[in-house]
Amino acid sequence: MTDEEYMDLALHLAESTKGQTSPNPSVGAVVVNNGMIAGMGAHLKAGEEHAEVHALQEAKEKAEGGTMYVTLEPCSHTGKTPPCVEAIINSGIRRVIIATLDPNPEVSGSGVEKLRQAGIEVSIGAGKDRADWLNRYFMHFMKTGMPYVTLKTAVSLDGKTATATGESQWITGGESRKDSHRLRHKHDAILAGIGTVLHDDPSLTARAENGGSQPVRVVLDHHLRIPLEASMLQDEMAPVWIFCGSDASEEKKRMLEQTDAVIYQVEEAEVHLEEVLTILGNKSILSVFVEGGSEIHGRFVEEKRFQEFVSYTAPVLIGGRFAPTAAGGEGITRLNEAPRLEVRSVEQLGSDIKVTAVRKGE
Amino acid sequence: MTDEEYMDLALHLAESTKGQTSPNPSVGAVVVNNGMIAGMGAHLKAGEEHAEVHALQEAKEKAEGGTMYVTLEPCSHTGKTPPCVEAIINSGIRRVIIATLDPNPEVSGSGVEKLRQAGIEVSIGAGKDRADWLNRYFMHFMKTGMPYVTLKTAVSLDGKTATATGESQWITGGESRKDSHRLRHKHDAILAGIGTVLHDDPSLTARAENGGSQPVRVVLDHHLRIPLEASMLQDEMAPVWIFCGSDASEEKKRMLEQTDAVIYQVEEAEVHLEEVLTILGNKSILSVFVEGGSEIHGRFVEEKRFQEFVSYTAPVLIGGRFAPTAAGGEGITRLNEAPRLEVRSVEQLGSDIKVTAVRKGE
Repeated sequence: MTDEEYMDLALHLAESTKGQTSPNPSVGAVVVNNGMIAGMGAHLKAGEEHAEVHALQEAKEKAEGGTMYVTLEPCSHTGKTPPCVEAIINSGIRRVIIATLDPNPEVSGSGVEKLRQAGIEVSIGAGKDRADWLNRYFMHFMKTGMPYVTLKTAVSLDGKTATATGESQWITGGESRKDSHRLRHKHDAILAGIGTVLHDDPSLTARAENGGSQPVRVVLDHHLRIPLEASMLQDEMAPVWIFCGSDASEEKKRMLEQTDAVIYQVEEAEVHLEEVLTILGNKSILSVFVEGGSEIHGRFVEEKRFQEFVSYTAPVLIGGRFAPTAAGGEGITRLNEAPRLEVRSVEQLGSDIKVTAVRKGE
Repeated sequence: MTDEEYMDLALHLAESTKGQTSPNPSVGAVVVNNGMIAGMGAHLKAGEEHAEVHALQEAKEKAEGGTMYVTLEPCSHTGKTPPCVEAIINSGIRRVIIATLDPNPEVSGSGVEKLRQAGIEVSIGAGKDRADWLNRYFMHFMKTGMPYVTLKTAVSLDGKTATATGESQWITGGESRKDSHRLRHKHDAILAGIGTVLHDDPSLTARAENGGSQPVRVVLDHHLRIPLEASMLQDEMAPVWIFCGSDASEEKKRMLEQTDAVIYQVEEAEVHLEEVLTILGNKSILSVFVEGGSEIHGRFVEEKRFQEFVSYTAPVLIGGRFAPTAAGGEGITRLNEAPRLEVRSVEQLGSDIKVTAVRKGE
């Protein structure tokens, strides 16, 4: 097997854990000695062993003289676990192939430095694109302190999220809905506007086939209009965080707090996206999956506060000049000021089409 | 080469002529004798030789004892040219492989019948899907007497054809525009509403790289609001047919007729799609490429008077609850009444995405 193939394997290990390691990144490592895989592993959960350690534990004395393939620069600082570079140096590994550097500007490159000081040959960059894409939430958060925002929509071929009278269940098919549950599971939080909560009473849980971690449910609700009987306040499936403005009723606030919902009251009458994202970032929410509706998406688009856009398009035409679309709000008036994206992938899911696009320059 | 490969070649010949044979279908034929291609040809222009005749002329005496691969059932009646079945029988061809039968219910199967009566072995169905798709305009027209309608749109990722203030040039990129000119060239008519004409003053010509046939330009203009200075009335590039209602001004009508535009005045105040399509069908227009705007598309969707939907999506987000979309109008209110389509292809054109979908059951 070539270096690329071993790195592919390490990336595959890392990708399999996406959604269960936050706020840590997903990392995979493979130890090879004399053309034989001696150990492999992935980081499974924040607070537990890093990928490198798992792989070294499996390799035992076979690590000596071997090569390690790891998808992210090994840490050189003591966090909840001892630094991986020490473990690598102590194991007798001779060569380390790293896909991408640590995005944290304060420590980026220092793991490589220490390995090289110990006489280990280090090379960087094999599989970088895939490794960066895999940990894009983590990378973005480490660089900006703000969560990575994905806007998700389900539309007809003519871009409608519902009919003019509000009928929206179900535009897209079962495979799209399943896929979107997998995406929920990969994010730390799911965000919706109060309009969507009042209209659909969604549970906003990730119903992946074999369970999995549940993202925090975030609702933007200026005036605390959410009913106490809302499904998400009853089901105890995942935390509910409600953001409201300064003039929200104190009484409603107290009543909601009795349901275990956490209320974040901002100082202004309107809840601003920047403030919401800053607070979520401070609470170690690295990624937010925005599930609308149309008006909420419109605000994220106007303020250009998103990194990714995922759409599921069903082969149906709805029509209607007043039917809601993926992004409402006031909208951008000048085309040259509209946020440009780059299409990452186009897939057919059942009879639907899934498009994943990222903001240019992200 | 296998039967499938020869038929592929015949289909390829036929596909190359798409857009230049209307109101005739595109047809390709290959004559093979003893494993060697002896002749090939395609129908090039209505009124001229059919594909089978071109291939037989090339094959000369080598047709004797050979096999003909032809993408459409050979004609058995005398039209502008003598019947092909006679030419085939006279040539001494032993075996005929046909992709699909003539869609005209009055003659379908009679070509096959005559060939078989002459002792020729006939088989039908190799390459049928591709042959039917290639001549879908012709097939639809022969079955219904109405033109095949393709709705075309160019939108942002959030389904907008323009910003809320009407800015729309250019949402999609150069490759999409080039492709859409190729599609114009393949249709007999391009249709637009008066709103689009007043807003954009489009020429509605097919600007394919090396020229090509020009479709008729059709404008729906209830009250004859089209200005005499409109580009399409000045450029003499292709015929202009304007449909207006009963209360359109007689004076404007006379002035327009001096520009060579043809005016179709219907009996009611409103121009109805069914009437427009019926008249176009009577004028041997087999296919109509509808280029909007949003309100016109909305009417085609509501009345389910379309067979195909083609969208070019650019990776940009515009937002805006009042920004126009691919299909406006009143819209369908019940999801289960919305027309369902089937995605035929999804392609990336430059940074855009092209989706081609057809009405279910068409």
